[in-house]
Amino acid sequence: MRRPEPGASGLSGLREDDLVAAIESIVASNADARLLVGIGDDAAVWQPSRSHRSVITSDACIEGVHFTRETMTLQDAGWRSMAANASDLAAMGARPVLATVSLGVGPQSTRDDILALYRGMADCARASGMAIAGGDLVRTPMLTIAITAVGEVRASNLKLRSGGYAGDVLAVTGELGASSAGLQIALGSATLPHDVAQAALLAHRHPLPRLREGAWLAASRHVHAMMDCSDGLSTDLHRLCAASRVGAVVDAVPVAPSALALATMQGEDPIDTAVRGGEDFELLVAIAPRAFPHLAMRFEAHFGRPLHRIGAMSKAKGLVVLKGAERVPLVRSGWDHFEA
Amino acid sequence: MRRPEPGASGLSGLREDDLVAAIESIVASNADARLLVGIGDDAAVWQPSRSHRSVITSDACIEGVHFTRETMTLQDAGWRSMAANASDLAAMGARPVLATVSLGVGPQSTRDDILALYRGMADCARASGMAIAGGDLVRTPMLTIAITAVGEVRASNLKLRSGGYAGDVLAVTGELGASSAGLQIALGSATLPHDVAQAALLAHRHPLPRLREGAWLAASRHVHAMMDCSDGLSTDLHRLCAASRVGAVVDAVPVAPSALALATMQGEDPIDTAVRGGEDFELLVAIAPRAFPHLAMRFEAHFGRPLHRIGAMSKAKGLVVLKGAERVPLVRSGWDHFEA
Repeated sequence: MRRPEPGASGLSGLREDDLVAAIESIVASNADARLLVGIGDDAAVWQPSRSHRSVITSDACIEGVHFTRETMTLQDAGWRSMAANASDLAAMGARPVLATVSLGVGPQSTRDDILALYRGMADCARASGMAIAGGDLVRTPMLTIAITAVGEVRASNLKLRSGGYAGDVLAVTGELGASSAGLQIALGSATLPHDVAQAALLAHRHPLPRLREGAWLAASRHVHAMMDCSDGLSTDLHRLCAASRVGAVVDAVPVAPSALALATMQGEDPIDTAVRGGEDFELLVAIAPRAFPHLAMRFEAHFGRPLHRIGAMSKAKGLVVLKGAERVPLVRSGWDHFEA
Repeated sequence: MRRPEPGASGLSGLREDDLVAAIESIVASNADARLLVGIGDDAAVWQPSRSHRSVITSDACIEGVHFTRETMTLQDAGWRSMAANASDLAAMGARPVLATVSLGVGPQSTRDDILALYRGMADCARASGMAIAGGDLVRTPMLTIAITAVGEVRASNLKLRSGGYAGDVLAVTGELGASSAGLQIALGSATLPHDVAQAALLAHRHPLPRLREGAWLAASRHVHAMMDCSDGLSTDLHRLCAASRVGAVVDAVPVAPSALALATMQGEDPIDTAVRGGEDFELLVAIAPRAFPHLAMRFEAHFGRPLHRIGAMSKAKGLVVLKGAERVPLVRSGWDHFEA
């Protein structure tokens, strides 16, 4: 998964969420009445007119930090960068409209490299119904792809991180751990049967943002909160629960076959592997408990895949995983850009 | 000014505008009916609803490429990055609404560095009426600030680069060359009398985007085309004329006192210095010739500063500068991110 570079030191021990809180206090006085949601959710929300909600998100992808040319092509890197932004829009229940791209290219980059990146970004944008509307092209020491995506959502469908209640069912839109397994395979640090390996590599290089699922879930008033778990369930569930001021008990985690196989080979608990692995771009959802069975049934009928129940939000603060009779604290082990 | 790093080589001889054209053809099929202006202007324009035009722009600022800590504080760098984006909105006649920030911080960056950057960005956002709505924080080899700004404009006020006609008066909202002079002073490669030096340093470190001027000019139907000349007049006038399919004759350039003094000391033609220097963030405007005198008078009465006439758009293609009786071609000598 995305890891800070080994040489990074100045920020060791400084947690990304803490830093974001300090930044929030600096920009807080900028609040505009039409800015409905600022820093702290998957995307910010503003109101261009009374009937509309526009949603905006930015996500950067850096060569050597988020991807290397050894593990994927530049076309894949372009796709993934765009997919990460589309996933943030999906998490708000929004329909993507457009994206802008700030591309920094290193001295080694050729014209073909840049066009390959753009092909990947354009493919994903097209598949997501988004136009690439412009951007900026600068010279940087290494490839940096900073994308901003804008979407739209009906005011009544907008889903935030903060809407969950104690008792809500927690669910995810797909199995976790495949992207992380794909990275290990791409790095050559693990081998798996061909079909399983290919599926994991595809999940890593060509992730599919859950736009249709997000829009579908957003249309239900029983869905109280939603976010994508791109930084790993263990990190993102902490964020969802903090925003909703609840705790959580996790009693089931859907583990991708590749992650299950790798964990078994490496003697690890598959659940630990799956909650740590990030960039699966599945949606994490808090749903009214009485509505969950019917919603899950309709979801499966509509998408041909289950909506996986993983646990419930709890009044008691703190996050725990039930492993048999044991209650194990869910440690934030996913991606944090600044934690050492 | 912004220069490619000396080590850059892979893209030598590849002009930014050519590369942008190749990128445009890749993303062209993504066109959305609601995307009114895509790649190629100061900002992209879309239509969230029938009565509204939203404008979006992205501009990145890289340590070591666009600024160094020797020439400005990080708070200044934050201000300037935000100002560059606000200036693109001003060039569309738009009112800024919000910005998102993708901040990449290097291993040497401290918490204080990041907060200083944010203070500068927040100050400029506040002064521009913009909220900082969110963004992304990643680890990069060196500081990279990629900002996306969104604004709004009445459909009838939107000004593009492509609206100019042969015969239109060309004008700029202020003197040119001060930022470039400020950089030379900050680098210690030039000295000037204290007051002149301070003004140049301020222009370089704390540029003021021409938002009020842009909105005021945009409200006039006699203003046919507008852009900011952040990459230097010699480069940006080429872009304005190419978009409007005209040529231009430049017969007057308002040179900032600092740039004039430096050019004189260095034995250069002040006009060459001023058209080459970028990042002045003045607006370059094409105005119906019969309306210009009255508009310029009202501009000066309103802002207390002149709207400087610099020449006219011409039917004959090509850009020339009149120097006395001589007609000198206006060579693109401003900033191009990829030109060797």
